[in-house]
This record gives sequence, C-alpha cells and structure tokens, in this order.
Amino acid sequence: MDIRSGGECAAMGASASFGELVNAPWFLFLDLMGTVAFALSGITIARAERYSIFGALMLAWLPALGGGLVMDVIAGRNPPGILEQPAYMQAIILTVLAARAVLWLIDLARGRWLFFFDIVRWYLHATRRLKPSTLLVLFDAVGLASFTVTGVFTAVQFNCHPLELWGPTFAMMNASLGAILRDVVRADAHNPILKGSLYAEIAMAAGLALSLLVLYAPGWMVGYGVAAVMVAVPTARLWCYSRDLRAPMF
Amino acid sequence: MDIRSGGECAAMGASASFGELVNAPWFLFLDLMGTVAFALSGITIARAERYSIFGALMLAWLPALGGGLVMDVIAGRNPPGILEQPAYMQAIILTVLAARAVLWLIDLARGRWLFFFDIVRWYLHATRRLKPSTLLVLFDAVGLASFTVTGVFTAVQFNCHPLELWGPTFAMMNASLGAILRDVVRADAHNPILKGSLYAEIAMAAGLALSLLVLYAPGWMVGYGVAAVMVAVPTARLWCYSRDLRAPMF
Amino acid sequence: MDIRSGGECAAMGASASFGELVNAPWFLFLDLMGTVAFALSGITIARAERYSIFGALMLAWLPALGGGLVMDVIAGRNPPGILEQPAYMQAIILTVLAARAVLWLIDLARGRWLFFFDIVRWYLHATRRLKPSTLLVLFDAVGLASFTVTGVFTAVQFNCHPLELWGPTFAMMNASLGAILRDVVRADAHNPILKGSLYAEIAMAAGLALSLLVLYAPGWMVGYGVAAVMVAVPTARLWCYSRDLRAPMF
Repeated sequence: MDIRSGGECAAMGASASFGELVNAPWFLFLDLMGTVAFALSGITIARAERYSIFGALMLAWLPALGGGLVMDVIAGRNPPGILEQPAYMQAIILTVLAARAVLWLIDLARGRWLFFFDIVRWYLHATRRLKPSTLLVLFDAVGLASFTVTGVFTAVQFNCHPLELWGPTFAMMNASLGAILRDVVRADAHNPILKGSLYAEIAMAAGLALSLLVLYAPGWMVGYGVAAVMVAVPTARLWCYSRDLRAPMF
Repeated sequence: MDIRSGGECAAMGASASFGELVNAPWFLFLDLMGTVAFALSGITIARAERYSIFGALMLAWLPALGGGLVMDVIAGRNPPGILEQPAYMQAIILTVLAARAVLWLIDLARGRWLFFFDIVRWYLHATRRLKPSTLLVLFDAVGLASFTVTGVFTAVQFNCHPLELWGPTFAMMNASLGAILRDVVRADAHNPILKGSLYAEIAMAAGLALSLLVLYAPGWMVGYGVAAVMVAVPTARLWCYSRDLRAPMF
Repeated sequence: MDIRSGGECAAMGASASFGELVNAPWFLFLDLMGTVAFALSGITIARAERYSIFGALMLAWLPALGGGLVMDVIAGRNPPGILEQPAYMQAIILTVLAARAVLWLIDLARGRWLFFFDIVRWYLHATRRLKPSTLLVLFDAVGLASFTVTGVFTAVQFNCHPLELWGPTFAMMNASLGAILRDVVRADAHNPILKGSLYAEIAMAAGLALSLLVLYAPGWMVGYGVAAVMVAVPTARLWCYSRDLRAPMF
C-alpha cells in the first residue's frame, strides 16, 4: 500500500468521523450560530446603506449561504446543500424578520419610556468591553471556524483530490466567498476580504491544517483536530481584529 | 395519511396540471414576450451607458436567463433549462440584433425624410399615454408574472421541500435575480430592486400564494391560480410603478 | 439520413478527433500557457490596485477558471472540470506565489546592486519592441485561442444542440466570461470587454467558424480547423490591440 492509497483510507475513516461530528448537536448549534452571525453582518450593512427589507434578505443570505452554494457546485453535490437543509434558509429569513421587528420596537420606544433595550445598552455600557458589535465579531469568528470545518468535510465527503488543494479551497469558499460576493453586490471597490482583512487567510490555513491531519494522521485524531480548529480560528480572528493586523499587500 | 403526504399528493397533481399549463401555446407566448421585454430592458441600459453590441447581449441575457440559471442549479436541474430550451437564447440574440438594426435605421433616417418611426412616434404622441417606455413596462410586468409561475412550477417539478419556502424563493429568483445580477455587472451601487423598487417582493408574494394553493387546494384550482397570477402580478406591478410606491427600508 | 443526423454524426467524429487534439502535449502546453497568462493579467491588476495576496489569487483565478466553471454548469458537466483537472488550480497558485517572490526579489534588489532583472529590463529595452507587457498580451492572445478551442470542444462533447448556438457561446464564456467577472468583482463600471475591447467577439467568431466546420465538414478537417484557430485568433487579437480597434457601440 503506497502513501496515496493510505491517504485515501485515512480520508474514508475521516469521512465517517466527520459525519458524526458535523451532525452532533453542539456542532449544529455552533454552525447555526455562525449562520445567524453572517446574516447579521449583512443586515448591519443593509441598515447603514438604506437597503429595502428584501435587499437586507439578500445581503444576509449571501455571506451565510452564497459561498457554500458555489462550493457545492464545484464539489458536484447535486442538489446543493441549501435545498437539502432548508433550516439554514429559514434561520436567515427569521433573523431578518426578527431584526426588523427589534428595530421597529426600538424606533417606537425611542424617547418615550425607559425601555428594555436601553437597559441592555446601559448594562453593556457598564460592562464596557462587551459591546454589541463585539458580540457580532465573536459570533462571526465562531461562524468562520464552523464553516471552515464543514468546508473541509465537504471536500472529504466528495473525494476531492488532492485534499491538500480542495480542503483549504473549500474551507475558504464556505467561510468567506459569500461575504466577498455580498460586497460585490454592493459594488464596493474596496472589498475588505480581498484588500487586507485577515479573514479568508485564516480559513485557508486552518483548512490546510485539518486536511493534512485527515490525510496523514490516524482517524481518531480528526475529532481533536476539529476541536482545535473551533478554538484556534475564533482566537486568531479576534486577535487579528483587535490588533487590526492586515494581510500583506501583493 | 398526514398533512405532509397530503401536501405531496397535491403537489404531484399540481405538477401534471402545471405541465399542461406552462406548455400551452398562450403561456409560452406570454413567457417569450416577458423574455423579450427583460432583454429590451437590458438593451435600453446598454444604449444609455455606451456598451458595445456584445455588452448589450450580456445585459439582455442576464435579466432574462441569469436568474433562472441560478434557480436551476439550486433545484438540481442538470443540465439547466437554457440548454434544453435554446429558443430563449435565440430569442434574446434576435432581439439584440433587431434592436440594433432598428436603431441603425433610425440613425440613418434622422433628419432626411419623414420616416415610419416618425409616424409611429407621432401616433404615440397623439395617443399620449401609450409611450414606448410604457409598453416596455407593460411587457416587463407580464414577464414578471410568467417568470413567477415558471419559478413555482420548477419548485413543484423538482420536489423542493418545503414548497412554502422554495416556491416564493424560486419565483423571486426566476423573475428578479437576473435583473439584480445585471445591475451588479454594471457595478451599480444603487441596485434598484434591492433598494426599494417593489419588484422582487411582488414575485415573492404571488409565488407564496400560488405555492399555498398547490399545497392545500384541490388540483383543479391550480389553473385558476395561474390565471389569477397572470392578471394580479402585472396589475400590482403597474400600480406600484405608476404610483411610485417604494418598499419599506430596512 | 437528414442533415440533422448527419450533423450529429459529424459531431461524434469531431468529439473523438477533438479528444485526441485537446489531450495532445502541444495543446496542453498552449492551454496551460494561456491559463498562466490569464492569471498574470489578474495579478497585474492586483498589484496596481493594492489587493492582498489572497485578493491577487482571486483576481488570478477568475479570468483563468471562472468562465469555464459557468460553462461547465450550463453544459451539465458534473463535477466541473476544475475538480477533475486540479493542475490548472495548482498552476494558478504557483503563478501567484512565483510572481510574489519575483516582486519581493525586485524590491530587495532595487538600488543595491546590478541585478538579473535589471539585465532583463536592459535587454528588453535594447530589443525595444518586446516589452514585458507585450509578452503578456501575446500569451493572453494564445490563451484566448486555446480557451476558444476547449469551449467548442465542451459543446461538442456534451452534445449541446444546436452547436451553431452553443459552440460560439461556450467559446466566448470559456475565454472571456472570467475576465468579465474579474472586473465585476473589482466593481469596475467601465468593464472593458463589455464596452468596446474586441476580445469576446473574436472568441465568438472563431467559435462559430469551428462549430460550422465540426457540423458540416468531414471529420479530418477538424484538426486543421483547430490549427487555424490557434493561428488566426492570436493574430486577430494582436492586430486589434496594436491598432486599438474598438467594437461598435450599441
């Protein structure tokens, strides 16, 4: 047995091991949290740039599911995942409607009476560091991690060779291509992920590490690898964000 | 038999009923009219913004067929509809070439002799309300209706569950995503369909109504539902257009 | 046997004949040269507009492989070609990394010692006409030719009828859609290929000629047709480029 087929055997074991993991309740919870965070990032932009509610739905949909759709097309998954798991679409629609309702309540309450949201804001102000935008960045970083894992899992599941190439590529696509597309739809010539934000690079690096683990390490280590990604990726992302680290220019 | 399987049975009956309808000559005529109107909307922009003939072909192609292509990919139709029905591609190419020829004739005739088109213009001027752009808006509204119907039909045909989600989603995609993509290609930061034009919203609402009819009403009602959509959607669109109604901002 | 089935038989013979050609070493070499040239065109833009290394990878990837991906989706190739031939992805990644290394070496050497690249520049200066950008335009024109051939080959291979429509369409998509998408991602409202550069038009014309040859000429002529395209397309492109010929406005 040469290295190649050994790698393939490891990949098959990894596929089963991955299957258990990505269907585990804790992982689905984190993945859905990431989806909602990606949707909220689109909503925040829709609010700032005066999109309609339908426009907000589009800007919420793209970062959460747009990259995964392109990945599924390349992997040959037919029909793509969003058709088989409508829960993600429904979560995004609910997020947009809930956010609109909350904004409507805030507009209604503003200047009239001391309101729940003022209490929340006051509480957050008091605790200082935990601003709502910080929470959003935190959730977004968790989404970056879980979408990296499901991206590598897709490459393993659909036998995309060589995994050293497709693992990091799919991790990057699943986690960041949708956000790139969102900024393309906004006709933003200063697309941050393409011009220096350390975001896609983190997904690629973690995707490469996880792919190498799947290929060359024993199957039982995949679970630990996933756990390591779920910790390391948000940490790295938050660290880059707080230090305002930039990717090197070409 | 629970509600779910009842819904599926209704959907199967609806699929057959839909099949007859969307292949009926009158429907194909309206659908092709809508395709040409969508293509003309792209051509009008290409003329105003100084695109080349190839650029005009692209701007004509996108609103007419771009959204349907994405819809087919999500529905898992392989190969997509545009490959199986090349008549739509051919209609768009003919529309672009015919429009170019007409514009060339107008340029040739301008200021030389009283020309057919001057007569047309004079006639339209005399009848006042029926300007060419009004005709275009009318045809475009018919296209919005027929593309909504074929969008819901695609969701039914490919068993996309839940139909309450995919019916309106595919209606919206088929009828409006291409026009959104056209404005993305133009790098227009004020994409009208995303920033307040009541267009995609009408397709979604009609798509939802038709999907609910397919799921919960007896099969023979689908035909009447399609007829109602073909009347209600253009009426609603023209009403929103003439009153300049805007979708609520997020 | 009517003309139609005769056309289909010719197409089958053409498919086998094409298969030999596009797998021949000299063709693969030219195709890979075109891929690298397309990638370099993206890299040049990334350098000028201050993209990150990841952004440069995206701008390199799109013109080289983006159009082919859309073409494969329409042709119904599942999974698409880039998954089955990872050599193209790897060539692009290597091109980006090598270009970065060369730029880094240039930056390091600038103003310190007489350097290999200064010698190259001096040599090119001495020979005058052969500037690096001219070389890039030449390679790019070769890529235009080889991507035109593989586009028509895809239409033949997947039995896309009528070939008179899909041959030129796929040639255009494979050779120019990716570059259009690259400029869409850059939010460039003056997308040159859509606004007058004679680029997609050349691919369409050559694709139509090759498709007609496949349909109506004996099978042994396909090889000569491919050779003619490989000579005529770069010649036409370089001629249009040097004379600054523009496509007619709509």
